[in-house]
Amino acid sequence: MSNVYGRSIKVSIFGESHGTGIGVIIDGLEPGLAIDMEEVNRQMARRAPGQKLGTTRKEPDQVEILSGIRNGVTCGTPICGVIFNKNTRSQDYEKTKLLLRPSHADYTGHVKYKGFEDFRGGGHFSGRITAPIVFAGALCRQALEQKGVAVGSHIVKLHHIEEDAFTLADLKAETLKELGTQQVPVLVQDNADKIAQCIESARAELNSVGGIVETAVIGVPAGLGDPFFDSMESRLAQILFSVPAVKGVSFGCGEAFAGMTGAQANDGYTVEDGQIRTITNNNGGILGGITNGVPITFKTVIKPTPSISRPQQTVNLDTMEPETLEIVGRHDPCIIPRAIPVLEAAAMIAVYDAWKEAGL
Amino acid sequence: MSNVYGRSIKVSIFGESHGTGIGVIIDGLEPGLAIDMEEVNRQMARRAPGQKLGTTRKEPDQVEILSGIRNGVTCGTPICGVIFNKNTRSQDYEKTKLLLRPSHADYTGHVKYKGFEDFRGGGHFSGRITAPIVFAGALCRQALEQKGVAVGSHIVKLHHIEEDAFTLADLKAETLKELGTQQVPVLVQDNADKIAQCIESARAELNSVGGIVETAVIGVPAGLGDPFFDSMESRLAQILFSVPAVKGVSFGCGEAFAGMTGAQANDGYTVEDGQIRTITNNNGGILGGITNGVPITFKTVIKPTPSISRPQQTVNLDTMEPETLEIVGRHDPCIIPRAIPVLEAAAMIAVYDAWKEAGL
Amino acid sequence: MSNVYGRSIKVSIFGESHGTGIGVIIDGLEPGLAIDMEEVNRQMARRAPGQKLGTTRKEPDQVEILSGIRNGVTCGTPICGVIFNKNTRSQDYEKTKLLLRPSHADYTGHVKYKGFEDFRGGGHFSGRITAPIVFAGALCRQALEQKGVAVGSHIVKLHHIEEDAFTLADLKAETLKELGTQQVPVLVQDNADKIAQCIESARAELNSVGGIVETAVIGVPAGLGDPFFDSMESRLAQILFSVPAVKGVSFGCGEAFAGMTGAQANDGYTVEDGQIRTITNNNGGILGGITNGVPITFKTVIKPTPSISRPQQTVNLDTMEPETLEIVGRHDPCIIPRAIPVLEAAAMIAVYDAWKEAGL
Amino acid sequence: MSNVYGRSIKVSIFGESHGTGIGVIIDGLEPGLAIDMEEVNRQMARRAPGQKLGTTRKEPDQVEILSGIRNGVTCGTPICGVIFNKNTRSQDYEKTKLLLRPSHADYTGHVKYKGFEDFRGGGHFSGRITAPIVFAGALCRQALEQKGVAVGSHIVKLHHIEEDAFTLADLKAETLKELGTQQVPVLVQDNADKIAQCIESARAELNSVGGIVETAVIGVPAGLGDPFFDSMESRLAQILFSVPAVKGVSFGCGEAFAGMTGAQANDGYTVEDGQIRTITNNNGGILGGITNGVPITFKTVIKPTPSISRPQQTVNLDTMEPETLEIVGRHDPCIIPRAIPVLEAAAMIAVYDAWKEAGL
Repeated sequence: MSNVYGRSIKVSIFGESHGTGIGVIIDGLEPGLAIDMEEVNRQMARRAPGQKLGTTRKEPDQVEILSGIRNGVTCGTPICGVIFNKNTRSQDYEKTKLLLRPSHADYTGHVKYKGFEDFRGGGHFSGRITAPIVFAGALCRQALEQKGVAVGSHIVKLHHIEEDAFTLADLKAETLKELGTQQVPVLVQDNADKIAQCIESARAELNSVGGIVETAVIGVPAGLGDPFFDSMESRLAQILFSVPAVKGVSFGCGEAFAGMTGAQANDGYTVEDGQIRTITNNNGGILGGITNGVPITFKTVIKPTPSISRPQQTVNLDTMEPETLEIVGRHDPCIIPRAIPVLEAAAMIAVYDAWKEAGL
Repeated sequence: MSNVYGRSIKVSIFGESHGTGIGVIIDGLEPGLAIDMEEVNRQMARRAPGQKLGTTRKEPDQVEILSGIRNGVTCGTPICGVIFNKNTRSQDYEKTKLLLRPSHADYTGHVKYKGFEDFRGGGHFSGRITAPIVFAGALCRQALEQKGVAVGSHIVKLHHIEEDAFTLADLKAETLKELGTQQVPVLVQDNADKIAQCIESARAELNSVGGIVETAVIGVPAGLGDPFFDSMESRLAQILFSVPAVKGVSFGCGEAFAGMTGAQANDGYTVEDGQIRTITNNNGGILGGITNGVPITFKTVIKPTPSISRPQQTVNLDTMEPETLEIVGRHDPCIIPRAIPVLEAAAMIAVYDAWKEAGL
Repeated sequence: MSNVYGRSIKVSIFGESHGTGIGVIIDGLEPGLAIDMEEVNRQMARRAPGQKLGTTRKEPDQVEILSGIRNGVTCGTPICGVIFNKNTRSQDYEKTKLLLRPSHADYTGHVKYKGFEDFRGGGHFSGRITAPIVFAGALCRQALEQKGVAVGSHIVKLHHIEEDAFTLADLKAETLKELGTQQVPVLVQDNADKIAQCIESARAELNSVGGIVETAVIGVPAGLGDPFFDSMESRLAQILFSVPAVKGVSFGCGEAFAGMTGAQANDGYTVEDGQIRTITNNNGGILGGITNGVPITFKTVIKPTPSISRPQQTVNLDTMEPETLEIVGRHDPCIIPRAIPVLEAAAMIAVYDAWKEAGL
Repeated sequence: MSNVYGRSIKVSIFGESHGTGIGVIIDGLEPGLAIDMEEVNRQMARRAPGQKLGTTRKEPDQVEILSGIRNGVTCGTPICGVIFNKNTRSQDYEKTKLLLRPSHADYTGHVKYKGFEDFRGGGHFSGRITAPIVFAGALCRQALEQKGVAVGSHIVKLHHIEEDAFTLADLKAETLKELGTQQVPVLVQDNADKIAQCIESARAELNSVGGIVETAVIGVPAGLGDPFFDSMESRLAQILFSVPAVKGVSFGCGEAFAGMTGAQANDGYTVEDGQIRTITNNNGGILGGITNGVPITFKTVIKPTPSISRPQQTVNLDTMEPETLEIVGRHDPCIIPRAIPVLEAAAMIAVYDAWKEAGL
């Protein structure tokens, strides 16, 4: 499938960091959806570079819509959104193109594409290619919001700073909405400053840090997803693992399940307003691959940004000799603040796709 | 896609725990592969119930091959393997069919299938349906072994017992093979007994325990997988999350990335025997969604078996009133020993699929 | 995709003519559908060999249902139906296995499967593998009949015998139902005898004949299918061309469009009972790839059965020398009567799939 | 799947006739292919409007490549090509937007997209959207030409003018290449003038005409395609039927099979240069869904252009009353000359996809 995601919708992406443009086609979105472009742009801005804690590059990331939306309303036909690339400093990369950047896709891309890959700025592997995912997700998000869905995330761990995972009590639309306005979304406000300091320290030390994001989607009905290969976990994990730097995905209690007993882990049932509901939500809203009507919660592990300016041991593709690489250029010491809107967009795409398929 | 996995091969599964039979079609396997049925049966036996630490049910799990293999050799056409169900005690389930078992798929299956699901023994959601996955995986495994691939797993955490993750030094074919012969595969032999005791304690306490399995696949060339939606991580996670009880999947260092810096996490490059290799393998053999030629390593979080015999709070589907459920019957206090061959089978299917697609 | 058909449902087939069994998995069928197995068997019988005008082989073609149907009602989970092979005379084929049968798939199967194909009775290419398609189609047909759909076919051309295509006036449920009970379904009754004679003459002359079948599906709402690659024509053609011996598929006027002008061909609009309807139906119920609410009509060209007992020029795979082949064994001098239920089944699968996807 | 075609490559299209732009993403094309853009433009020009026998609209149809090609060479990553729309006279359509044009997709698009479709110039259903298909096909064509493939077509029937189908003797690269340079490609030169006259007569009479195109693809090896649902016929038919106005597809002798006997139709085998070859090619190069190494030949039925300027009976969507429609604007009295490059492009896409999948 390669560049296409979805079972009942199709999201096809393309683009290289320093090519002419990057973009996405979304097919299968319902006709008649009025798109709030300001809100789309707000989502794009959350991911865009040039923010306080991130890289100092500035990219407007303005999406030009080529098809499928007329007078601000979806036609039901494939929507193509394109971001034309500007402000690209290809020369930054030309100098070091033969030196494989550790933990980047330079080597694997080189093998897969036999040396014909566009290496500039990571090419097709650039985190920049997530901008079209945010665009596609922003459309799905607006469609889902009309059905009562809300999504939000907090940083549950960043290097040595940790906070508790969402409880069912946290999972209200207002809380999630509020988290969406914060650059460093946390449940315990103190942590925001600690995280900002930690990131700035990493920058000062020419280093980078990783962490874990927890995301919740509320308002999803029971019955989405399938047993086995198209389980709701499989669908979400497939698209979450397409986000660069993601190295782990877990649902509900996630790794904590490993230390729990069944008596602790099982979510008993009760009846609320005539509806069957679980009392706890250790399973993160998914059982047997199918949503159970309580919030979907998942954690995404983000590795430290590979681009660090310290000397690193690498190999020169041309000479096949070891060499020391010092990456220059503007990079995020922690990608998490900018990754969060991408993870949320990915979740919105997966949920929209599963919902449409369920025909509910 | 529902019941079908694969991009260049197609694995389609079917079956209910207490129906006539369960099985799988595998299409796209190469013609001319001589199948060692004894080895297939050995893999099936690893997953089969009736083992020391598991349930006391005995199921022969004999696969009958209906097509695609003639005189022990694959034809290249779809292979159908069926396991006819025997020794099913449906009456165990009839009594409690209206009482939703916590953390099982009873409720979500009921919603999705509108009350027409076969509830006996978990029906289509039963862990029993993983037997066909082991069969399909056993075929892929044999094909991959001929190309030099080996797979193996150890229990990296079970309740409170933990051991270190694989190091590159552990990842030899002999080590992995040896692990495959152990019912409680561990790198530190003491842990096997501790784990067995922990499981038996859980059984005695009418409880269950969860844990984390780490799996390694060695001998995979660089170049498998794709950027984005069909990344090697996405492909593996999709099929791993279709295994019941799996709630987390991570690659390489996994959650540990969250506490690391880039300087610690990055895998520098060196040249070995004229081949570019990473010095460390924190990324678990995958960069930019594509294999880099060093071992693939991933961790899978398995939740505690939901079937425990303690009283649990639930709801009666008929009366919609709260009720207390006491599950009777034979159940595994820890599913991990039997889950390991399923996870390995899933990995073999995903790797075979990606390898064929890469055309290497 | 190989052995899997469908966008919102998945139909996966397997089997060789002389293997252990042939069959199909259908996933995505709605739960709660009461299956009339007698009617399923009636559809199977229409395709089964041993009929007056066909081969003298008798095969019971009894489908054993392994999963997905409980107490005669669909569960919503994958349905697997298997036909175990009996009455196979493999020795008939052993003698001539090295002699490529002209216009059969012996050569292409040999190339694709590198000599490992099961050559007996055509193996996986046998027309016998259409029996599972009839089974899957029979299930879809019953689901669609409850929504008011009917399907039927007539032989519009068989060798030199021709009759007029369906008119809108022919397209009533009773007419289609009546056609379904005839072994040689025709609109002009005289043609049935002429066709029977023509087929018997071909048999007497050790020859075979081809023809064209026209099929109509009534009761399909406007709005099924998509523009471009998943047009209703594309969907139907994809599955119709998977039926062995099919060499042409056309919609509405089909080839006659080539001699028409726009003024003749265009279907003007009118209003009937408050509904927009076309006045004529030259387009066969599909415009822009999407159904328009009037009957779907299509013609399928069936080539003469390749198995004829006359001497034919061929090549011996072993010696690579020309040789003369005389096919012995029991064969249909015209496959059309038995192909009709397969074509209808294929149409029902395609329509069910598109309908489900449209969410109507 | 909707807007995506392909099993081993993915071709995703988008666009409306009068929107901002139309285009296509092609993913899975091999890296390192040097693209001859002049030749791409020559293919685009063959389809472009403004030709002698077609509409008088002029559209430059200049493809802008946004990604996947760098310095004229494919990178292996998704290639996006966009054609920005110019010279659109939306006001032509505004006047009649409520009047359903007979045999166009106005009504079916209206039902499917619930009134939110972009109706201007046919919107997403416009023949204009085939331009991206020509672009994608031109890339596949160049890749296939390097493997020795050639493709070409002639008009085998246009209204009352007919000529013989390709014989094996016609199927040489030079003949096919020569056909590709003719605006009215025919084997019998006299027919070109007759056809041109016939088209001009139709224009003068405010009418349109249909016909049949025969296409041949030479140089394809044996072994492409699959039995059943992904037969080479299924793959070709799926994409050919996505071309607007196509109402029939047949292979080899096509409809003529209906009048033939097995003795006439069967393609005997011989050995040529150590290779097994059929003596005749009635089956159009495909047996059992798989190519047999002789040329693929297929016929495509094109209906008369629905846009004719005569008064036609229709319905007003607003009033739901019958009304008379007179289409004004610039239209092709016969779309066949411009459809030919689209059919060839579609064939190249299908063949490239199947070839890659076969791994030959």
